[in-house]
Parts: sequence; C-alpha cells; structure tokens
Amino acid sequence: MGNEYSVVGKRLPRIDAHGKALGQMQYIEDIVLPRMLCGKILRSPLPHAKILNIDTSKAERLPGVKGIVTGKGIPRKTYGIVPKAHDEYALAIDKVRYIGDDVAAVAAVDEDTAEEALSLIKVDYEPLPAVFDPEEAIKPGAPLIHEEYGSNISAKILKNFGDIDKGFAEADYVREDRFYHQAVNHAPLEPHGAIALYDARGKFTVWSSTQIPFFMRRNLAKTLDVPESDVRVIKPTVGGGFGQKLDLFAKDFGAAWLARQTGRPVKIIYNREEVFTCTRQRHPMVIYVKTGIKKDGTIVAQHCRIYADGGAYNSTAPLIITLSAYFMMIPYMIRNLRFEGHHVYTNKPVGGAMRGHGIPQVRFGCESSLDMLAEEAGIDPVALRLKNALRANEPHPAQYKIYTCGLSEAIEKTAESMQWKDRYGKLPKGHGIGIAASAYPSGLNNMSHIGAGAIVKIQQDDGSVTLLSGAADIGQGAESMLAQIAAEVLGVTLQEMRVLAADTELTPLDSGTFGSGVTFRAGNAARLAALDARKQIADVVADKLEVSPDDLVFRDKRVFVQGSSDKGMSWNEAIKAVQYADKPMPIVGRGFYHVDAVEPTTLLTQEGNFSPAYSFMAQGAEVKVDLETGQVKVLKVTAGHDCGFALNPISVEGQLEGSVAGGAGQAIYEDIDWDEGRIRNTNFLDYKMLTSLEMPDVENIEVITNDPYGPFGAKEAGEGTIIPTAACITNAVYNATGVRIKELPITPEKILKGLEELKAKAAAKA
Amino acid sequence: MGNEYSVVGKRLPRIDAHGKALGQMQYIEDIVLPRMLCGKILRSPLPHAKILNIDTSKAERLPGVKGIVTGKGIPRKTYGIVPKAHDEYALAIDKVRYIGDDVAAVAAVDEDTAEEALSLIKVDYEPLPAVFDPEEAIKPGAPLIHEEYGSNISAKILKNFGDIDKGFAEADYVREDRFYHQAVNHAPLEPHGAIALYDARGKFTVWSSTQIPFFMRRNLAKTLDVPESDVRVIKPTVGGGFGQKLDLFAKDFGAAWLARQTGRPVKIIYNREEVFTCTRQRHPMVIYVKTGIKKDGTIVAQHCRIYADGGAYNSTAPLIITLSAYFMMIPYMIRNLRFEGHHVYTNKPVGGAMRGHGIPQVRFGCESSLDMLAEEAGIDPVALRLKNALRANEPHPAQYKIYTCGLSEAIEKTAESMQWKDRYGKLPKGHGIGIAASAYPSGLNNMSHIGAGAIVKIQQDDGSVTLLSGAADIGQGAESMLAQIAAEVLGVTLQEMRVLAADTELTPLDSGTFGSGVTFRAGNAARLAALDARKQIADVVADKLEVSPDDLVFRDKRVFVQGSSDKGMSWNEAIKAVQYADKPMPIVGRGFYHVDAVEPTTLLTQEGNFSPAYSFMAQGAEVKVDLETGQVKVLKVTAGHDCGFALNPISVEGQLEGSVAGGAGQAIYEDIDWDEGRIRNTNFLDYKMLTSLEMPDVENIEVITNDPYGPFGAKEAGEGTIIPTAACITNAVYNATGVRIKELPITPEKILKGLEELKAKAAAKA
Repeated sequence: MGNEYSVVGKRLPRIDAHGKALGQMQYIEDIVLPRMLCGKILRSPLPHAKILNIDTSKAERLPGVKGIVTGKGIPRKTYGIVPKAHDEYALAIDKVRYIGDDVAAVAAVDEDTAEEALSLIKVDYEPLPAVFDPEEAIKPGAPLIHEEYGSNISAKILKNFGDIDKGFAEADYVREDRFYHQAVNHAPLEPHGAIALYDARGKFTVWSSTQIPFFMRRNLAKTLDVPESDVRVIKPTVGGGFGQKLDLFAKDFGAAWLARQTGRPVKIIYNREEVFTCTRQRHPMVIYVKTGIKKDGTIVAQHCRIYADGGAYNSTAPLIITLSAYFMMIPYMIRNLRFEGHHVYTNKPVGGAMRGHGIPQVRFGCESSLDMLAEEAGIDPVALRLKNALRANEPHPAQYKIYTCGLSEAIEKTAESMQWKDRYGKLPKGHGIGIAASAYPSGLNNMSHIGAGAIVKIQQDDGSVTLLSGAADIGQGAESMLAQIAAEVLGVTLQEMRVLAADTELTPLDSGTFGSGVTFRAGNAARLAALDARKQIADVVADKLEVSPDDLVFRDKRVFVQGSSDKGMSWNEAIKAVQYADKPMPIVGRGFYHVDAVEPTTLLTQEGNFSPAYSFMAQGAEVKVDLETGQVKVLKVTAGHDCGFALNPISVEGQLEGSVAGGAGQAIYEDIDWDEGRIRNTNFLDYKMLTSLEMPDVENIEVITNDPYGPFGAKEAGEGTIIPTAACITNAVYNATGVRIKELPITPEKILKGLEELKAKAAAKA
Repeated sequence: MGNEYSVVGKRLPRIDAHGKALGQMQYIEDIVLPRMLCGKILRSPLPHAKILNIDTSKAERLPGVKGIVTGKGIPRKTYGIVPKAHDEYALAIDKVRYIGDDVAAVAAVDEDTAEEALSLIKVDYEPLPAVFDPEEAIKPGAPLIHEEYGSNISAKILKNFGDIDKGFAEADYVREDRFYHQAVNHAPLEPHGAIALYDARGKFTVWSSTQIPFFMRRNLAKTLDVPESDVRVIKPTVGGGFGQKLDLFAKDFGAAWLARQTGRPVKIIYNREEVFTCTRQRHPMVIYVKTGIKKDGTIVAQHCRIYADGGAYNSTAPLIITLSAYFMMIPYMIRNLRFEGHHVYTNKPVGGAMRGHGIPQVRFGCESSLDMLAEEAGIDPVALRLKNALRANEPHPAQYKIYTCGLSEAIEKTAESMQWKDRYGKLPKGHGIGIAASAYPSGLNNMSHIGAGAIVKIQQDDGSVTLLSGAADIGQGAESMLAQIAAEVLGVTLQEMRVLAADTELTPLDSGTFGSGVTFRAGNAARLAALDARKQIADVVADKLEVSPDDLVFRDKRVFVQGSSDKGMSWNEAIKAVQYADKPMPIVGRGFYHVDAVEPTTLLTQEGNFSPAYSFMAQGAEVKVDLETGQVKVLKVTAGHDCGFALNPISVEGQLEGSVAGGAGQAIYEDIDWDEGRIRNTNFLDYKMLTSLEMPDVENIEVITNDPYGPFGAKEAGEGTIIPTAACITNAVYNATGVRIKELPITPEKILKGLEELKAKAAAKA
C-alpha cells in the first residue's frame, strides 16, 4: 500500500494541528461582531410544571437590557431530528418538562446585565407530578409528559426475523438477564454557543457550534417560521461534539430571535452546567436480553427488549432505538431474532445522539449475555464469537449487504495479541481479561437527504486548491481526511490544500457529521470533485504532450505520462497551461455522493440494510481489581478495527484511543447523578471521567479490507470502537473476580457487594 | 428596454444598501481576532535623508510591545503597480524620500503602548538636499531621489501620430499654453487598514481595505519574500477607494510581518493624517498644450508635454502618463499628434491612481486650449467639439476600435438641455456657462493579466444563488451590478442573490477595481457563469417538459417554454428537479472574461487600442462668480454620459453625481498645501472639499448605445464623468468673467487678480 499512494495512507499531521496548538483557530467564543450583545437563557427550576404567567416587565426596565423573548412570543413550531418526531418548542410554551428547560432568552449589553435580567423575570409555575424512571413512566397512571401522545412511550420499534420460538426451542443453553446502562455526558471541551446576525435584507446569519449545519438551518427556519433561504448557518472551528452538537438549542434560536428583535448581533455561550443539563446525554437504558445457543456455540435465537430513557423530549428518537435494533442483527449471524424498543419520556434532561448512538447499551447487554452463556456451555468466549461472526457477502436475514468484513480477523488478531489462549482463566485472582465485538455503519442511507456534495476549486495563479465541503469537522479531523483524498487525486501535497467547510451559503449541501458517515460520503464527493477538476487540467496537458488524458498521472506535484515520468511538467506548469489556454476560466470540479449513486439497485432502501458499508471491531481488555477496595484498573485495551483502509493511520489511531478513553471511562467512572430530576454533578470535579492518569495502554490493530465503495477503500473509524469497551471490561472484571456487573458503571461498591455475595454463596455451598 | 429585462435596467436598491445604512457591514476596523495586537508605523520627519542607524532597544523594553521591524530586518524587495517600475521598499531601507515615509512598524497590546513605542525608537538621519518641484527636479544638479535611475525622470513616454509640423503648418490658429493641475486627495471616508494572521502552516491571511486583492497578494508575497500561495487576501467591506486603495502600504506589509514575528494577529489602521500623507494623491501636473485648428474648427495638430509630479515613488508610473497620452487621442479625431510625458520624482508624498487617473489633468489643459482657440476663431465651443468628435467604427490614427460612441449625442443633448444657443455669451456679467468633453475606457486590455473569472453556485435546497467573484466592491456598487447581471440571466430576483467577492482563496482570479473595468470584465464573467449554471438547470427541466433547452425562458422566478408561459415551473421546482435528478450534485457555473476571448483578432494588443469599449461624456457647467469677492458658485452641472446601457440607473446617477461632486470640488476648493514637502492640511477642516451645501444641481443625461461586447450593452460609468468637470467650470468662469484660469483650483484670489489684469488691460487700451 505504501507505494501506491503519496498522500492517503500516510501518517501526516492534520491540516489544523498547528493552528489548534497555537490557539489560532476561531471557535464560536472567539468571534466578535460590532455592537454584539450577550444573550442568556432563563431555565426551569422544576421538573414538570404548567407555566401560568411570565412577567418580564422588571427585566425590561433594567438598563442595558435590549431584548427579551419568552415562549408566548414565538411561533408554535416544534423542532427535532427525525421529521415526524418533532416535539420541542424553541422555548417552553405551556409547560416545562425538566429542570433546565428553556423558558426565556435575554439579550443585554454584557453578561452581568443579562444574568441580572434573568433574575428579574418572574415566572408563575403550577407544579405537576413528575416521573424520573422509564419503567415507572410507562405504568398506567404515570403523569403524562406530552399529553398529545396519550402515553410516555413516544416511539416503539419491533423487529422480527426468523422464528424466535423455534429458535429458543432448538437452543441447548438459554438465559435472560436485565442490564442497565447509565446516562453519560459527551463533555466536549468547548461548550455550546451561537451568534446570530439579522441583516436588513431580512436574512439571518447564525454561527453555531454545530455538527450538522444544514439541519441546523432547517430547524432554525422552522422555529423562526421563515424560509430556509433566509437562514445562513456557518460552522466555526468546533471543539468536540460526539453527537451533542446535533440538535438545535435555545442558544441558536434565542440568538437569532433576539438579533432580529434588537437589530444587533447576539452571542449566547452555554456554561458547563448548561452543557450537562440542557443539551443532550447518552440515553440511560434498561436492556432485557434473552439468548439461546447450541452446544457448539451457534446462536440460535436472541430476544431484546429495551427501555430508553429519553428524558423530556425526543431529540433523535425514534432513530436511537432503530439503531439499537439494527445492532442486534450485526456483528453476528442470528437467524431468529426479536427486538422490542421503547423510547420513554421522563422528567429528566434529554437523551440524544452520542458516539455509538444507542448501540453501546444493547451491545453491553448482548456481549455480557454471550459471555455468560459461553461459561455455561463451556465454550471459550473467543471461539463463541468466531463461530457466529458475520462474513462478507453472506446472505443476511435482514438483507444487509456486507461487502467487506474483517470481524473474524479482528477477533483472531486481538485474541492472539492478548495471548488469550495462554492467559484466559489462567491469571491470578483479581487479574483478568475479556473480549467483546461490534460493528458500525459508515453513515446511514435510510434517509433521502443523506448525501454530500463537494466543489474543488484550483487557483490558476498559484495552483492552490480549495475544497468546499458542507461536512462538519468537529475536531475529529474530517477536513484533513477530505484534504488528503483530494490531494491524492490531484497529485498535490497537503500544503496546497485548503478546506472551506460548512457554510450553508458557500458550501454544497451535506448531511452533516453523524453516524460516522463523513469520510464515506463527503470523502467520496471530494474524490469525485477532484477527479472532475483533474480532468479539466488533464485535457489541456494531454493536448500539450500529445497523449491521451487517460495516460496522465498526477502525483507528487507533477503531471506526467504513465510509464515515462520524465515526459511531463510540474503541477504549477500544468495549472499555468490551463490558465493560458483558458485565460482566467476558473478550474472548478463538482462531485456528489449519494448511496444510490454508487449502486442503486443493491444498496438502497432495503429492509435492514442501512449503510453503504460496515466496519467491524473486536476489543480485549485486561484489568486488575483490588479485591480489598473493589477498585478496577484497566491495564490495557487491545482494539482490533476493520476500517477498510486507514486514510491517515494517525487519525485512525487517535479515534481508536479516544473511543477507548470514552468507553473505559463510561465503564468504570462516568455516571450522571440525579436527585428528583436535578443533576448533581454538572462539572468536571464531580463528574468523573478517565484522565491521562487512568488511561490504559491501547494497542491498535488495523484490519485492512479495502471496501469497494469507500474512498480509497476506507470505512468508518470514529465511533465503533467505543461500543465494545464497557462489555469487554465487564467481561474481564468477571474473569478477574467472578463478579458479573449488569449495571454500569463498575463501581468499587458493586464489586465489593458482588464479592460478598460470592463469599456467601460459597459459604452456603460449603 | 423596459419590457426586455426584469432585473437589469431597473432602479433597484443596492444589495448592501440597508446593511450599510444600519451599520451592519464589517469594515476592516470592525474585525476583531483573538489576541489581536495593535500596529503603528514610525514615519520620517524629513523629506530626504540617509538612515544611519535605528535604535529600537528602548522601545523593545517597553512592557506591552510585542514586535518591532525596521527596514534593516526585511528583504530588499521592492513593490509597485507596474511590474518593471517597482521602486519602493515595504519599509525604507537606506533612505527616506518624503515626510511620512515608512521607517518602522511596531505591534503592541494596545494603541497607547504602540504610540509610546514609536516615540522610543531613535533614528539617526543624515539630511540630504531635497527638491519639491518637478520642473526643478529635472534640472541638472538636482538632488537625485533614486540614484539608480541617474535622473529624477523615472518614466518617459513619447507618442507620435501623423506629422505634427505639417499639421501646425496647415493651421489657421495656433496657441500654446501652460497649465497646472494641483494635487488632490481621494479622501475616502474609511481610512486604510489591514489585519494579518500568520498561521502555523506558514500561511498569511491578510484582511485589507484594498481595491485590488490579487495584486495586493502579489505585492505582499514579493515584499515578504514568500510564494504567492502562502498569502491569502480577504477584502472586507471597503468604505471608498477612488484609486487610493490600489497600492500595498506599510500597514499591509507591517501587519503581515509582525503577525509572523509575534505569532498573534496584528491590526494597523491609518489615521486621517496618514491617509493624506502616506498613501497616494492625484499627481500634480504641469501641462503644456499647443493646439492648431483650421478656420472651420478642424483640429489639425496637437502637441502636449507634461510633467507629472510623482512624489517619492512610482506607484502607478508609467501607467499614469500612458493614460495621459491615450486621452490626447480621444475623444476627438486628431490626425497629427505628439505627446511627451514625464513622470518626475520629488521629495513629496506619492502620486497614484485616482478617479480618472492622469486624464483630468491633460483634458483640463486640452479643453481649455480648445475654448481659447474657439474664441480666437470665432467658433462656438459646442460646434467646435461636434466638428471634431469621434464617431463609432471610424478608422483611428492610433488604431482604436470604437464600436459604440455617443459623444456627439451627448454634446448635443447637453447643450440643448443647457439652452446653450440662447444663453452662451448672453448672460449677465458674472454668470456663465461652459462645456467640455472626454472619453474613458471600460477597463484596460494592454496587460496580460487583465481578466476576470466568476463562479455561480446554486443551492439545491433553497434555490438561492451565490456568485463568487474576485471583483472588489469598494463602495461603488460592483457587487450589486454583478448580482443584477446574474439574476437577470437566471430569472431570479436580487433577494435570491448573494455575492461573495474578493477572497483570493475562495473567489476566482480577478484583476481588481481600477480603470472602470469591473462591470465590463467581472460582469461579463458573471453573465457567462450564470449561463453555464442555467444550462445545468435547463437540461433537466427541458427533459421534464419534453422541449429543447433552448426553448426555455428563465424569468421572474419561473422557467417556462418560450411563447407558452403556462408550460413551465417555478424556479424552486426547477432547482428541486435538478436536485432529485442529480441528488446532491452542486449546481456550479463557471465563467471568465478576457478581452481576447471576445474578439481575439481585433481587440487585443494593437498599438493604441487599450480597452474593449469606450464611454463618452460631455459636461456643461453653469456658474455665478461674485465679482466683488471672486467667489465661484457652481449652480448646475449637466452631465451627458454614454454608458452603453444603464444596468441600474440609480447607480449610474450616483456615479455621475459623485464624479461631479469630486470634479467641482477639485475645480474650486481642493488643494494639498505643502511647505517644504510637509502637507499642512491633513484633515477635513483644513482640506476643503465640496459639501452638500456647495453641491450644484446635477442633471444626468443618459446616452444609450448598447455596446456589443458589454454585459447587456453596458460600458464604463464610474470615473469618466469626473474628467471634464474642472474644464467645463473654468470655461464657464471665463464665460462669466473673462478670466482664464490655467492653474487649479479656481480660488477667489486668482479671480480677483484676473479681473484686476483685465481692468488694467482695458485701461491701457483706452
């Protein structure tokens, strides 16, 4: 692979690496506009209440206050992610549904004045009974959070494949368990913010720390009740998203509304408490898993029933539980399967997309279930997983089209590297290893708007290349990936490349950053746009060299004839040739990617098949548990990942390490702590995350499968690896201690309690 | 014309009109970057001196000072406008050549600290003898300002057509006069500024109040000694230029250099004194004109010798005197002609491009000369001009290709409107009228880089249109012109249009704003790019409607079949049709304009023919002169202008009125007042300009000639009208008083002196 390419596949620093290190990038907080006001949001102190009256008169009289808006003054338009499930107003109108719900927005000359204005707004609430537990919320008589649904179950999904009863009847071992995955926060280093400008043509420009600019525009236009063409969304540098910056928030709407009201730009930046309370979190979930296997390890049936605690609003529901369902069906071949998913309203902060989105929860349950069955059946957990691992191009019960699948290789290499055979079950008490696996899509294709355009513009005067993409780099390095792809096609270096990404006025339509689809979608679009631009150059150069354009190679800043590299010219000479042939005609290439453009008849819209490509990952953990204190130390995580082809190995490794850090933190530390709907740990002191001191060693194992549809063979490498982490750690903890953790996180208290129970059981036996 | 078009030719408000009125546009001063420093320039207090030493040590120790650069620390690279005449260092290296010359640049945490740092820099000068008058400067033994030229004449131009001696021999009336046109300042409301950012990839981003971004980039790259591809120039909203914002200045270089030195963004904004002293001014000029006419008024010969006082550096020389020469040959047919132009260095502030650029001076001389000869020959000045007026498609001695010429019509209509026949010579003493004429190019085509590209991008989701152009709107309304042109082609309204103009990274190559070429060049490019985008839509719509794409009309936000307007669809439906046909393929049209792309064999590179199109203007002034005080009041100016076709009559009128305001001010008030090279009136209190109180009535007369190569028939409408103003006013003053003003401005003192002389002459006769 090394010699085939000059730019892709190389360990190159990201194009923005130095700029970030030197503090030169412009995040939302860095942007200052003339006469800009400071905006703040007034929030509900109650988990569930009717709004009887809001009196803003005192606040309005405070000098320096320039604008106030409440739910009364805004259009009754709901927003959300999934079109049919919009259920949230930009500001609460009749009711508040959780502590932190958005009640009013204020714009003032400075932050202190805005804060004081909030304290002068008097809201009369009529408290309503509240419910905080999803299994309580679905009981008859529970307080209804959205009366119009008639139930607190806002979304339900049922999937059936094969014959579940027949499957379980054939099983030699069956067990059913209840698991619980806690709520965790994305905790991006950069808090959420927005700046809005309303111009005299009646158009809004909104800078927002968003990962989904075109959808942001749609939700803004809807809630403001203006045409989409009146809203321009610009994404500045974003300091982390992980799914938490998908949604519209009161900051976006409030800044826009107040900009129009006051005629001045308005900036709203959330504080850390607001990030924890008023944005989104990973859905806490109750997972019932019943699995049946044969003596030889074949999984014959699986039944999963989940209750996702969505909090007060839908956000990504029903997508979240759809994804939970899809990832029952993969990475193993399960011919008889049943999934029942429920998205449940509670009077708590809102669940939303988060790295892995709905899948870490179910896979935690499923991968734990498999290990328990393996023990019962006396089968090695690695062998069990290999036995059932999906294979490429196998007919799939849900009609998935899996063109490349490195799962078996990932499991084998991971196990080998961990010296599984020599160590599993053979380590001293308190020391253990465990394994788990998963799969992840490279973007979703079950929505009509999922696509990406790209424009490649080459400056004739200096040969520099500008890639215009609607993709949203939120810190994951998307712009660098796209730059590498376009540079490879054009035969230039990253030094020539600039990426302009995510401005709904300037950059082509793109569906945004979610579901790990950016490299696949926007990368393919960038590749095609670069090819289109290259053709414009090749035609002129071929003419000059009297060869066919198809004979030309673009590489290392040269354009030359295939097979005779001295016959050619430099990149800049080629660009000049076009300039003089064509005078100042801009060199502009266009490209687009949509899943059905690649293979219309097989890839699209079939039941179950929801992505153009799937990545696969196996993960092994090695832990030490202090049997006195119950403290778990994750020593090492081995991450085998089939990402198709690593466009930039440094970035892939960064993604894997980031996923392991997140996954391990969520396994052993992270936990949003509620008291009657109020989060108690809304800061980085009280909310425990993995720091560099607790970070395990990570060994990355690249599995290369060269996907036929991915750009240069690449597939997802961003989210999937976070999925098996908690499961392989709980499996390793069991291996070390005999304690099976079914409720995350793995706290010392739970370990000690488990050890006590084991002792009691052993005593009873003896 | 009214029914032919929906957008062009209409009296539409500019797209930025409201934004400007509401203070929402971002001028250079409005831009704030994180950690930005304030920069200031140390300037020479002497008109001519060697720099012996610069000691910055004290300034460096001042807390808050972050960077200092002097001429010693920079590359020995000169800059300028005309490639072969670069003669100015970014900061003075060995010598200073005028009071205000750039000596050092400082960056500090705030303005006060930067000012204090300047005062702590100790410069040891060795004063040199200085020269302030161009006719003195060319005498042998005058101090040499640039030793390497061996003379203070930095540029010379000689043009000869026909046989000048034979011409004068045939003349019945010959006279030779010496004229002087004073220095005037452009006085844009917005002072000059720059902000530079140096990023960790080693690339500069420079925001500059420039009218010529791509040339700015070239000059910056040269003086910084980096490749052009390392420099990105962005033009924010610019508050007036008039030619003064063509050049690189120390602010641009200094901001960039200090940004690299300090690692922080640096902003430098000039104060008004710096704008007057250290940017550019209209060249003061000594003009010797000898003209010979026959009894019937035919001009048989003209000889012009000029000395343009360039101040300390070349800036636009030799272009300035080339333009002076070209405009001897037009607007009248002169078969025997000689022009000798000299650009002379003096130890004064620097002359540069200014509205009309080199032409107001010569035409002031020539038009005065014609009026004097007309009187001698007893010919009416209007009849004299009509007799010699050029006509379209006539063979021209200098091989000009004049496809359209409305000069005669402009003279006739102007005279008619002024009731010339009834009033000329018949008004009471102290009340008079006068006329003058000129021509102006629609951009220059004698330079290989003169061209423009355009990209039209249509958003598939909302049908909005973004035009990317490298043209620089500096307040004249260029973006609105381009938007109207593209909107007309696409059949949308200005509400759909957005223009992104002048960012060397994003927008296509463009030669910038000078020589009144923007509408012609960039307008043609925009038209072609819009046509290209329209074709992409037409192909899909035609397919849907089962007609040929050529049968489709795009108008008023509809696409329909020619002749059956009900058979069609809305603009947004058409865009959606493309989107669904093509999924998210961006709709992008490309266009370019270069003069030889239109008519390669006839328009380009021929001796003398320097523009693809010429506009023509006649101007009449009516004045009242107070015979007691000598005070001149310009009552009315009638401006007949052949602009081909008025793309937006409001804008054309605005240009004509602005030109008249400038021309009249320069005729009677404006005058840079020097004392040994030091300007004494560097503020708006002491530098007198025409205000609204002194503004004459202006009558605009549109002459429509529909140029075959201009976009929708349009030609220049920005600068030409300023040219004849001073001449027609001096002619009117003569008509009112008998006093012939040969040195501008027309001060009361000169009038009174003239009246005294007349009285003395009359007394002597009697």
